[in-house]
Amino acid sequence: MGKLTEVEIATQLEQMSGWNRETDGKWIVKTYRFNEYLSGIAFVEKVARIAELELNHHPLIAIDYKRVTLRLTSWHDGGLTALDFEAAARFDDALGV
Amino acid sequence: MGKLTEVEIATQLEQMSGWNRETDGKWIVKTYRFNEYLSGIAFVEKVARIAELELNHHPLIAIDYKRVTLRLTSWHDGGLTALDFEAAARFDDALGV
Repeated sequence: MGKLTEVEIATQLEQMSGWNRETDGKWIVKTYRFNEYLSGIAFVEKVARIAELELNHHPLIAIDYKRVTLRLTSWHDGGLTALDFEAAARFDDALGV
Repeated sequence: MGKLTEVEIATQLEQMSGWNRETDGKWIVKTYRFNEYLSGIAFVEKVARIAELELNHHPLIAIDYKRVTLRLTSWHDGGLTALDFEAAARFDDALGV
């Protein structure tokens, strides 16, 4: 799994909703907002299980009351790979499960 | 519930393990390390339930793989109150449950 090119990253991001690159370009980030605090926590649990058991790829997770922010990068590739976008799509899907 | 004095904060912190003040002085913070990723997530779930259902006081939570960091302050008092230290002690206790 290698680093994606700038064009590949831009193409991937266009197909997604709410995901943005962070300033240094090595991360994609999305903040999800929930009506109930414990709904956000239930989402974090789903994300964590997918990350650990299905993808073996773990986002940074920040919980700020009813806002949950996920950040993804591929450390050993020094930037964004296809796995980051696969994970992002899986986490979005988990919202609806 | 009012803001604690500097002496009160120092006294409280001395009685706790692993909790430190952040640089601006308005927060206390602790990082917990887990051997298993999903153990850290289970801890976050416990913390969140205590925060929502028992204390109505919510820490900022950051999950960085097997490290979970909690940050506490009392927004409406503009600093640290007894509730922050009560919450910190309850979260420490939740580790052993």
